[in-house]
Amino acid sequence: MKAVLIIMDGLGDRPLDEFKGKTVLEAAATPNLDKIAASGISGLMDSIAPGVTPGSDTSHLAIFGLDPEEHYHGRGPLEVLGVGIPLKHGDICFRSNVGTVDDDMTIKDRRAGRIESTAEHCRLLDGTKIDGVEIILKPSAWYRAGLVLRGKGLSPNVGKNDPKETGVKVMKVKPLDDTPAAAKTAKVLNKLTELSYKKFRDMPLNKKRVAEGKLPGNILLFRGAGRFVPAPSLEERYGGMKAACVAGGGLYKGIARYVGMDVLDVKGATGRYDSDYGAKVKAVKEALKTHDLIFLHLKATDSAGEDMNPALKKEMVEKMDSAIAGLLGLKDCLLVATSDHTTPCSLGHHSYEPVALAMAGDGIRVDDVVKFGERTCAKGGLHRIRGLDLMNIIASHTGFKKLYGA
Amino acid sequence: MKAVLIIMDGLGDRPLDEFKGKTVLEAAATPNLDKIAASGISGLMDSIAPGVTPGSDTSHLAIFGLDPEEHYHGRGPLEVLGVGIPLKHGDICFRSNVGTVDDDMTIKDRRAGRIESTAEHCRLLDGTKIDGVEIILKPSAWYRAGLVLRGKGLSPNVGKNDPKETGVKVMKVKPLDDTPAAAKTAKVLNKLTELSYKKFRDMPLNKKRVAEGKLPGNILLFRGAGRFVPAPSLEERYGGMKAACVAGGGLYKGIARYVGMDVLDVKGATGRYDSDYGAKVKAVKEALKTHDLIFLHLKATDSAGEDMNPALKKEMVEKMDSAIAGLLGLKDCLLVATSDHTTPCSLGHHSYEPVALAMAGDGIRVDDVVKFGERTCAKGGLHRIRGLDLMNIIASHTGFKKLYGA
Repeated sequence: MKAVLIIMDGLGDRPLDEFKGKTVLEAAATPNLDKIAASGISGLMDSIAPGVTPGSDTSHLAIFGLDPEEHYHGRGPLEVLGVGIPLKHGDICFRSNVGTVDDDMTIKDRRAGRIESTAEHCRLLDGTKIDGVEIILKPSAWYRAGLVLRGKGLSPNVGKNDPKETGVKVMKVKPLDDTPAAAKTAKVLNKLTELSYKKFRDMPLNKKRVAEGKLPGNILLFRGAGRFVPAPSLEERYGGMKAACVAGGGLYKGIARYVGMDVLDVKGATGRYDSDYGAKVKAVKEALKTHDLIFLHLKATDSAGEDMNPALKKEMVEKMDSAIAGLLGLKDCLLVATSDHTTPCSLGHHSYEPVALAMAGDGIRVDDVVKFGERTCAKGGLHRIRGLDLMNIIASHTGFKKLYGA
Repeated sequence: MKAVLIIMDGLGDRPLDEFKGKTVLEAAATPNLDKIAASGISGLMDSIAPGVTPGSDTSHLAIFGLDPEEHYHGRGPLEVLGVGIPLKHGDICFRSNVGTVDDDMTIKDRRAGRIESTAEHCRLLDGTKIDGVEIILKPSAWYRAGLVLRGKGLSPNVGKNDPKETGVKVMKVKPLDDTPAAAKTAKVLNKLTELSYKKFRDMPLNKKRVAEGKLPGNILLFRGAGRFVPAPSLEERYGGMKAACVAGGGLYKGIARYVGMDVLDVKGATGRYDSDYGAKVKAVKEALKTHDLIFLHLKATDSAGEDMNPALKKEMVEKMDSAIAGLLGLKDCLLVATSDHTTPCSLGHHSYEPVALAMAGDGIRVDDVVKFGERTCAKGGLHRIRGLDLMNIIASHTGFKKLYGA
């Protein structure tokens, strides 16, 4: 038996006055998700634990069966894996942007006017050595890039140079402990900040941008330091299960690579509101021919929650639901629909409440829940489980996880 | 957002024939607790874990987010903190009573006829040194006192001198392991027993009591050895949350101090059936002006359960419910009503069953439970959580606990 795991990011919400006390999911028309609930078993899931607000990274690690207490080493390595940079154990990784600074290093724009590519910037720094440390810098979508420091005696316990606001100066990276490794890493990073300004400032690309009235991309900003420590793959942990990922956002592709999934390249999968869900669902169906588990990640519900836009979030739920129609009725396939965390439109950021979960397929103990929503699923036969339980359930139901004991 | 956490001690019960199969809580008229359930989300809570019968100490530690496996070091330190004795890391602490013995050290009464004060007794021993160990003894309510041994090379792994029954001799304290520290501690304690008899026997207070036909307070009885090991405060663990405690019973004040709460002095809060709940609720409302979380402890339900008196327990539930009316409708405040454990009237002691839990406030995913009771709350949207989850939920909902991950 195969399985499709659909994660609708940040789908969970709180009761909203504009929906007469319903959540976005409860208010949305979701005939296809309702079919999964009605023909399957439902429940609630805390991706980490009750009362814990999960990050996007920790929640997905837990959902893929890796306890973040053991396997979470910061966001950097997961973002960098998402860019597609092959990593070595011990690499120090960062999320990075190309931004715009004034002559005195005051930040004018953290994204250099949403510059379309960082490919030329990366070419100027990728492969450079600073104090014997190799700098790896590869372009990601738009103004983003993946940054890796590779060398001996480095530490992830360092700050960032990105203050995450404009009108203030680029930060000096500080070591966060007293070790020589943290001091060395901070020193290399501060030299990298200076070098990026020196190399980017006079790029022909930037002269052209300025002439066109655009902001130049003249500084490398980075944050989210983390050490890459490999983790056991899904295949190792679940009896040879081969998994593939269909996602738009870099982080989710990175997490998928971290847990050993094949990341499929799907045209039109942008991770934004305009993402082509039809193309993604088509890719899922294709991937089922070669893989046992397909992870389908849909991001827009989280973005709309962060944008505090209930109408848009509802629209995105309905767009997701329509696309999911294409996955109903697959033979010998367990269909699992859930989310990674709650992102209430009333807050605009992640919160702690559990999310709706439903799964349907041959052999499932069908319960009497007929609507996919936070409070309908709460009455389902799965009760309230944790993220770390989910892959065990999926892998056991599909026959990949074996007996514990004898 | 602020929060009030109401713990109705030992509230949980079992079905009773005299209430036609209802529990005390189900049989009681509780319009105000029902309002919390109806306007909020409900569930069951195992303060430790399913099937584990919690002590009053371990349950409250867990409810305040400290795993008792790591942070429970015996009842002594918590009782002594309740008396208000400032402790140092490593102090060996005991609950103690002044009792009555015959000339041959046979116990006539463990509470010396419920003697009104131990202040004079404490003055005779407090500050004494035995084998270089400092004895700290401070009066608590009625016949009770807090006992601390302070010095080097001491161990909490010792027995007690209090046999907890009458007609038998005062016990010789035994070391419970082979360490020199346990041997030394037991020796000091046995000398203390003798010294207390020697010093108390001829007190003018006792001569007066005997002349009045009362039992003399002529022996110091102690039990519940534990070492004081400080724990991280609520403020440290939950992003600067300032908490205050409104309680009558010494243990609860002690636990509150242990977790870093300010303990408020409320006139009329006795921890007994006669406790002035109106005064306590008034104190809670006042404390909300200066604190983020108020812990309101109400003891009488547990006492009535231990007294195996269902009618009295029901009366106490209704008395609590009436007082709680004063806490309904507070603005920007999460109201949480629950208990620490079950104390069935049919048993007269703690038992393992989970307790009812309901919480109401802005942003809560209101479920369809409308009555606060063990079996109504069992159908609620919180499902079945653990004590260790509760503070995470409260601190996340009020915004004090931050994201885990990024």
